[in-house]
Amino acid sequence: MKSLLGANEAHPAHLINAQGKSPFVLICEHASNHVPECLGDLGLSDTDRKRHIAWDIGAAGVAREMSRILDAPLFLQRYSRLVYDCNRSPENPAAMPEKSEVFDVPGNLNLSADDKLARTKSIYRPFLDAITSFLDERAASARPAIPISVHSFTPAYFGKMREVQIGLLFEHHDGVARDLEKLFLGYDTRLNEPYGPEHGVMHLMNQIAAPRGLAHLMLEIRNDLISDPYQEKQWATRVAAALNAHLRKKKKGT
Amino acid sequence: MKSLLGANEAHPAHLINAQGKSPFVLICEHASNHVPECLGDLGLSDTDRKRHIAWDIGAAGVAREMSRILDAPLFLQRYSRLVYDCNRSPENPAAMPEKSEVFDVPGNLNLSADDKLARTKSIYRPFLDAITSFLDERAASARPAIPISVHSFTPAYFGKMREVQIGLLFEHHDGVARDLEKLFLGYDTRLNEPYGPEHGVMHLMNQIAAPRGLAHLMLEIRNDLISDPYQEKQWATRVAAALNAHLRKKKKGT
Repeated sequence: MKSLLGANEAHPAHLINAQGKSPFVLICEHASNHVPECLGDLGLSDTDRKRHIAWDIGAAGVAREMSRILDAPLFLQRYSRLVYDCNRSPENPAAMPEKSEVFDVPGNLNLSADDKLARTKSIYRPFLDAITSFLDERAASARPAIPISVHSFTPAYFGKMREVQIGLLFEHHDGVARDLEKLFLGYDTRLNEPYGPEHGVMHLMNQIAAPRGLAHLMLEIRNDLISDPYQEKQWATRVAAALNAHLRKKKKGT
Repeated sequence: MKSLLGANEAHPAHLINAQGKSPFVLICEHASNHVPECLGDLGLSDTDRKRHIAWDIGAAGVAREMSRILDAPLFLQRYSRLVYDCNRSPENPAAMPEKSEVFDVPGNLNLSADDKLARTKSIYRPFLDAITSFLDERAASARPAIPISVHSFTPAYFGKMREVQIGLLFEHHDGVARDLEKLFLGYDTRLNEPYGPEHGVMHLMNQIAAPRGLAHLMLEIRNDLISDPYQEKQWATRVAAALNAHLRKKKKGT
């Protein structure tokens, strides 16, 4: 099988602050809208490749700032989710979507088994392996790990406006989400909205965190709240403070 | 990190009948009581290394015969579960147990972080990676996969006799287990006994099958029922027939 990535193209996992001392392990699998050279523009215009369908706008900025504030390691995925959505299993058609929301993705039409396998093995698998290897080292040295994935969502979806501003998503572990629920005063914060496990969005956490018995959270921020670097920093500060409050509560055993 | 396995020692995943056409993908992670050379005898007598604590007695025999009857691929793990129990995550002390049932395992005492990481990276991770890679290929070519793990359990545990003979174990997918429940006439068949998800025994399935949305089952046979090759064949035939009945039912959509 040929790799999707050329010799000069980087590994899908971009690990920042690998030595970070925080128990939180940050993950941003929809960090980038970059497409590997061999796939061209996926048949999309520049405008469409800048939309939420290609990446989670603002999420990488928030995650980088959280990594700095918390002294936490951060895994950024280097390629667009339209190439392979690392929050979907290879069995899921949404992993390499032919259509995302109302937008066709011409470069994803009629993929052969080899095409699909190349994307799985070049993007999804090495990204997950990098996280897994990191968590294996933490486990061997009995250091805690609490994976937190950082996402953003679009205010308008299929033409409908969303009122929810902050989503705290979970399926097999609800502790972090419930602790954070009351901590964003003045913001419309909801559990398992605008998506939940019934939409298959817990895949990455179900793959890397739940089977290990690790506490975890999938965080969703409405992207109009993080539309510039100043807002990204503000939200990173708020979320980091909320995560630290969760840790303090856990330490007290309350 | 040094590998636990010498140059002449085989990869932990022994794949049999890789081209098998069955949707069932058989797994026997406790197939062997073999210990890598560098770990000696783990401080155990020959007698103790032949007990159920080191492997699932009879399970590999049943699984091999099922592979033949069903034309199913089969992954056997080549090393003792006392070296690394591939049905436990690296975070779980039972992955490299200092004590199993009433038996101390001297070779597992006071393992350093490096020792633990070497076992994780030499045994557990390559075994899971082999299965994952196989399932990725099935997914890319849209061929179905239903992982079935084959285990056995001891009739007497902590001095207590167990009445259950066949256990059908599940956590996130119950379809196969419930279909098989009534098919072993005359045998004491129970759901989630003698173990269940609360004992952490669904780990391998939660890691390789559930996050992919694959139907799956963990099968447990009391080892006095499969104490010789004739009995192993009989049970393989029964279980294979039950799995085929499940497939027929699914095809009918009933």
